Amino acid sequence: MDPLTQLGGWGISRRAVLQGMAATWAAVTGGFTLNGRYQTAWAREQATSSPSETQPATLRVLGIGGSLRAGSYNRGLLRAAQELTPAPHTLEIADLSALPLYNPDVEAQGFPPAVAGLRTAAAIADALLFATPEYYRSIPGALKNAIDWLGRPPNSPLARKPYAVLGATTADLGTVRAQLQLREILLSFDLPVVQRPEVFISNADGKFDEQGSLLDPASRQAVQDLVAALLVLTEQLQQSWPPARA
Amino acid sequence: MDPLTQLGGWGISRRAVLQGMAATWAAVTGGFTLNGRYQTAWAREQATSSPSETQPATLRVLGIGGSLRAGSYNRGLLRAAQELTPAPHTLEIADLSALPLYNPDVEAQGFPPAVAGLRTAAAIADALLFATPEYYRSIPGALKNAIDWLGRPPNSPLARKPYAVLGATTADLGTVRAQLQLREILLSFDLPVVQRPEVFISNADGKFDEQGSLLDPASRQAVQDLVAALLVLTEQLQQSWPPARA
Repeated sequence: MDPLTQLGGWGISRRAVLQGMAATWAAVTGGFTLNGRYQTAWAREQATSSPSETQPATLRVLGIGGSLRAGSYNRGLLRAAQELTPAPHTLEIADLSALPLYNPDVEAQGFPPAVAGLRTAAAIADALLFATPEYYRSIPGALKNAIDWLGRPPNSPLARKPYAVLGATTADLGTVRAQLQLREILLSFDLPVVQRPEVFISNADGKFDEQGSLLDPASRQAVQDLVAALLVLTEQLQQSWPPARA
Repeated sequence: MDPLTQLGGWGISRRAVLQGMAATWAAVTGGFTLNGRYQTAWAREQATSSPSETQPATLRVLGIGGSLRAGSYNRGLLRAAQELTPAPHTLEIADLSALPLYNPDVEAQGFPPAVAGLRTAAAIADALLFATPEYYRSIPGALKNAIDWLGRPPNSPLARKPYAVLGATTADLGTVRAQLQLREILLSFDLPVVQRPEVFISNADGKFDEQGSLLDPASRQAVQDLVAALLVLTEQLQQSWPPARA
């Protein structure tokens, strides 16, 4: 017998288990280090449980990268996250390059097409994953500009959207200052956030190949753990929060 | 006799006085509240001292506003600052609306015209005055984007540029969170900054007229004091720092 089914029947009481996890979230998130424990439990559950009651929802994550550079390491992080997102969940990568600078006078004429497209992509997503470089102790203006557009009423697509943050840099410190400013900015929307793992990729030029694909095993594991944590948090919240997209 | 000339002869020892001010800058900046004391001293000096030795340098300030809205209150603050800049000093207002989003691939082809124009305007300025709204606990993406372009080598026009910050909002809290994030961002460039006065304009819709001109007397005094403090700091530094623009 799968030891997981001894938890009062994992296939039946998965909701109860998740509610229990909610009560001890601080302890649970301590498990999302580099061992992939919950990732494994998640995959095992999908393989052994009956579809009717226990198939997890198919979750859509929108990846938002802060750098517009074609060979961006942070887009490489999002591609790695895409590869490491367990089926049936999916991760799409947004494109910020066509967004105009936010201007209330422009907004008053209606959202420009690139803005409307990004807002739709965010609206249909269940969760957001931000991958940011650090430009001058903060996130790029291009990323803040995207948030300036995404946050606007009516029906901001950021509402009730769980998110996670990671970042890569060729320098030291792993984008920690940018991530701190980003978390502070996103406090504006009262969003649930993955607190652990924190993923800071320093010296990125030694961890990606020339095509910008993430090779470093420890970094890949951290990305995998972060995606898993984001999926668990999202599903957990959707137990009590019917998704806004109905 | 003007009491100021009793300071060992203000007209002759102005440099010594400024050096003394440098040593006690924290104390001096305490004077820049709403009483306009140093503003008054500055104007009096110009009126009473001989031009050959004591005429202050003509300083150029570049005003950079964070909002692209035509009727922006923060542009209104910059226009007020322009009116309240004592001759012979001048304040020009930058336009950020034509800047593309920062992209290293674009930069590799050379600075686009709007970027080159802004960099030149900053390079010939002696000091910078940032007027920012608060968008989601930070500065607008458009303003961060301008900094992303201005900071780039070679010869970043931010080098050794004293600056000051102020901001207006229709909400409460006077843009304090945006100003804090901006100050943190600008730490990247090791720039001298005016610490006092801090100028936080809340409930802006009651303090500007319909054309976006600043009417509120206390706010105008605060803007005037801030400009005066920025000019004093700039001139003080130029005593020891020959300006980079030679």
